[in-house]
Amino acid sequence: MKILLTNDDGINAPGIYALWRELRKIGEISIVAPETEQSAVGHAITLSNPLRLREVCRDGSFYGYSVNGTPADCVKLGVTAIFREPPDILISGINLGPNLGVDVIYSGTVSAATEGTIIGIPSIAVSLAIRRDPDFCFAAAFARALCLQVKEKGIPAGILLNVNIPAVPLAKVKGVKITRQGKARFKDTFEKRLDPRGNVYYWLTGETIREEEDEEADSKAVKDNYVSITPLHFDLTAYPNICGLKEWDIFLKD
Amino acid sequence: MKILLTNDDGINAPGIYALWRELRKIGEISIVAPETEQSAVGHAITLSNPLRLREVCRDGSFYGYSVNGTPADCVKLGVTAIFREPPDILISGINLGPNLGVDVIYSGTVSAATEGTIIGIPSIAVSLAIRRDPDFCFAAAFARALCLQVKEKGIPAGILLNVNIPAVPLAKVKGVKITRQGKARFKDTFEKRLDPRGNVYYWLTGETIREEEDEEADSKAVKDNYVSITPLHFDLTAYPNICGLKEWDIFLKD
Repeated sequence: MKILLTNDDGINAPGIYALWRELRKIGEISIVAPETEQSAVGHAITLSNPLRLREVCRDGSFYGYSVNGTPADCVKLGVTAIFREPPDILISGINLGPNLGVDVIYSGTVSAATEGTIIGIPSIAVSLAIRRDPDFCFAAAFARALCLQVKEKGIPAGILLNVNIPAVPLAKVKGVKITRQGKARFKDTFEKRLDPRGNVYYWLTGETIREEEDEEADSKAVKDNYVSITPLHFDLTAYPNICGLKEWDIFLKD
Repeated sequence: MKILLTNDDGINAPGIYALWRELRKIGEISIVAPETEQSAVGHAITLSNPLRLREVCRDGSFYGYSVNGTPADCVKLGVTAIFREPPDILISGINLGPNLGVDVIYSGTVSAATEGTIIGIPSIAVSLAIRRDPDFCFAAAFARALCLQVKEKGIPAGILLNVNIPAVPLAKVKGVKITRQGKARFKDTFEKRLDPRGNVYYWLTGETIREEEDEEADSKAVKDNYVSITPLHFDLTAYPNICGLKEWDIFLKD
């Protein structure tokens, strides 16, 4: 089983290392990940700058390539230009922090898996729902178990799996829930500051708003200590609204 | 009618200027757009760098703010920190080049409108299907006509309109089609080069693949000289696949 690993926290992040340590037990691993942290880059790709590759080795046995680009760049470059054969599966992660609700659209971790899916590779994004002092052990072991099942059952074409893992020990994990993308979202605020030269600048900050989530929502599952798996696709069409718009009878000029 | 304009080609692009010239006839315009071109940044937002605003004036009457960030940053900063009242409508564009099919997920133009929708503002992305020597006249006039209709009819919450305009004179436009996001996508290739110091670098390049598109697809409509309007949302859940996954009976560890 040929497994391609990537992430958005960068090739030196602990999450991708934890994933590699588990997944090399079941397959042949290739790694291509951003040179630097690329959180919240969404599905950005690099058109105006040349991309460069670097060989990276960690601890004498983790070998990979870093790219001065985004997670989606890494997947494109890895599959198209670096590796001879396409992988059997692509795993993006393990992200430090959840990718749930509306935040999914900002996620570099999820976008790497989306890119894999677009290219035709069964792809999974894995995130651990904690932002500090992570223990990636269970998340990595779960990723391994899921890989084996995907190998057996396949993922339908055009679909990726967005996996979010509660940050609790295995004994406290209640099970796995198949969920939908919920409505939790970040409410933005900007902190206005002055730099030492007296110029104004802003930091994006804020807090997650959890509207009341039903039992099917991704964030509710993780809150209740379930592993959440959401099937995602990249067709953004709001099909139920097509009919209504057809009745508008839109004029070309006013 | 308070109208907020943004784009991904940057505040100095001709497309946003053409939009401003038409829309100021029907409303009070605010402008916040990226300082530099941000094509293909997808839904990236800036978390690790401070954002700075600059006042920009073009031709003595076009006043706006530029931001050293992405289109989504511009919308967040505009609505949250710059302008006192939220706009009645947000228009992102006019993009130089189409945003059709799978490419929609890479689009900064569409992402700005998505961000508006998330914040609760009726939002429209407008793109002109040509990459060189654009004539924005009809596209801008259409945007104005559409604005007036949106004012009257509203856009359902959670939905944005992705508008793509064929690059032909009004007389050749056959009408408006309400479409779905098609399957047209970019097939990537990378051009490998050596820099003057002998180091390898890559340019992302390639060509659009148009799988056979049915009559409902966005790219087919534009190809046939119709204005394409696709209702989009930001719920990426692949609902038809939830049932199948529930039957997997996924184990936590292998």
